[in-house]
Amino acid sequence: MIGINKIGVYIPENRISNLTKLSKFETDEDFIINKIGIEKVSLKNKDEDVSDMCVKAFENLNSKGTIDCNIIKAIILVTQNPESNIPHTSAIIHDKLKLPSDCACFDISLGCSGYVYGLSVLKSFMQTNNIENALLFTCDPYSKIMDMEDKNTSLLFGDAASVTYLSNKSPLFSIEKFTFGTIGKESHNLTAGINGSKLFMNGRGIYNFVIRNIPNDLKKLYELNSIKESQVDRFLFHQGSKYMLDALTKRMKLDPAKVIFGASKYGNTVSSSIPLLLNEDIDNENGSKHIVLSGFGVGLSWSSTLLIKLK
Amino acid sequence: MIGINKIGVYIPENRISNLTKLSKFETDEDFIINKIGIEKVSLKNKDEDVSDMCVKAFENLNSKGTIDCNIIKAIILVTQNPESNIPHTSAIIHDKLKLPSDCACFDISLGCSGYVYGLSVLKSFMQTNNIENALLFTCDPYSKIMDMEDKNTSLLFGDAASVTYLSNKSPLFSIEKFTFGTIGKESHNLTAGINGSKLFMNGRGIYNFVIRNIPNDLKKLYELNSIKESQVDRFLFHQGSKYMLDALTKRMKLDPAKVIFGASKYGNTVSSSIPLLLNEDIDNENGSKHIVLSGFGVGLSWSSTLLIKLK
Repeated sequence: MIGINKIGVYIPENRISNLTKLSKFETDEDFIINKIGIEKVSLKNKDEDVSDMCVKAFENLNSKGTIDCNIIKAIILVTQNPESNIPHTSAIIHDKLKLPSDCACFDISLGCSGYVYGLSVLKSFMQTNNIENALLFTCDPYSKIMDMEDKNTSLLFGDAASVTYLSNKSPLFSIEKFTFGTIGKESHNLTAGINGSKLFMNGRGIYNFVIRNIPNDLKKLYELNSIKESQVDRFLFHQGSKYMLDALTKRMKLDPAKVIFGASKYGNTVSSSIPLLLNEDIDNENGSKHIVLSGFGVGLSWSSTLLIKLK
Repeated sequence: MIGINKIGVYIPENRISNLTKLSKFETDEDFIINKIGIEKVSLKNKDEDVSDMCVKAFENLNSKGTIDCNIIKAIILVTQNPESNIPHTSAIIHDKLKLPSDCACFDISLGCSGYVYGLSVLKSFMQTNNIENALLFTCDPYSKIMDMEDKNTSLLFGDAASVTYLSNKSPLFSIEKFTFGTIGKESHNLTAGINGSKLFMNGRGIYNFVIRNIPNDLKKLYELNSIKESQVDRFLFHQGSKYMLDALTKRMKLDPAKVIFGASKYGNTVSSSIPLLLNEDIDNENGSKHIVLSGFGVGLSWSSTLLIKLK
């Protein structure tokens, strides 16, 4: 059975403190710490781009047990800020990791829901094509497209990369059934153009979208996977903001102890937000048995799934 | 069984004749007609972008038998020239076609191999997620990134879009097993940057890549699908140029009558090249029974598969 074996992450060491921007944005510490919940955002070095960050995430993965690159037969990179339009950045990662020539590589364009979609796409692709070992990368450095003078985005988004090793050899988690959704007519709430047009976000529009759709989606997910909400040990939601997670928790009457907000020291890292949290859960000896993942944002779109710990 | 039901296409009416550029590029009619084989290239209108072209391809599909958009539960767009980085263009198509909210949408970044990869990704995704009806779009208008003064590219590439309807209800073709490959270290042969940097192509590098890899890949494909080369009725290769297809035909000692070069009136349409040809084969009453598809290019990458006509 194909499942998640382990995760590697890269969060740039450079952090910008939002507390230094209080007067600039006419805000206060309470708003930073208790509402958006993001004290610092991570910022990549100017000379590192998406493939470099992915390689660093892979080095972290490799430090947890060496991976023979010759057995990797597929990689997917989830990003909306690739290094170039042509080629896809996964081909550059292919070169840097010296992966074999019979390795399928492609990028998927999705944002905050992208990790969960990516898990489904890669697992399906592996199953159908009889692939035993593959890597799912996420890296979407919004610092490339953010206007640092924009309060709506520059206090929220941080840079990071992750790589998830999927394998049919003694995986740590099974990957159960998925839900997916898109409301394209609301896509105008989160945009960035070609040719340097900057990131725009209407936070209220996204908040409404999340509150309207995610609670119902999770009910569908429980039913699809024949599980009760009370059996779920951990909810790893996309880390939009503390405010959004608090609202979701309240709306769904979830146990707040089961809902993790972990982005306070690096920010909303888009498609890397969920694998960063999952990685922490894996590293914890008392890691969770039943984990719900739910990503939502750009598109506007969402996807949710259930992981079950196997050992 | 999930297979290909039908295809819709859109080729812009506006065509530029390469024969008007002979003196500009210091070339002759023989080079245009007999070597590259592309007499005219199609050019989209300035006011139409990727999602508009995909909608036109869908209108063509719909004219062959109405599709209830409510049953479409996944769409993939293969492109490396999306309308914007954020959102993915498939979300914009989702809006324009008024697809349902439980429809998964994402873009895949791949070039000339992208249609074949896309068939595998979408078929796998449908199978695993129990999806019965889905659409695979291709649209990569290189006119957006071409330097019209560049002889290496402006004589070759044309604009087009396609949509392939995959369904488990009475499909016309089964989709058999796939091969995939990537040689990332050769990706420098075909590039285009973010922020308006133009398309660059080293034709010789790509030619060598194709001749070195595709003949062996097809042997692997025959073995994988337990078929003999002689049983194949039709080879639908990516339409790089007539010269490339002639060389492949010769190298593999294929029957030239089985190898289609059909791009002379619109050019190399990247990921749309193969579905445009397949569409013509479907429309032909004496359509082929065993069809090999093989796409190769950007990445550098390739993918091949076998279609078998079911009725």
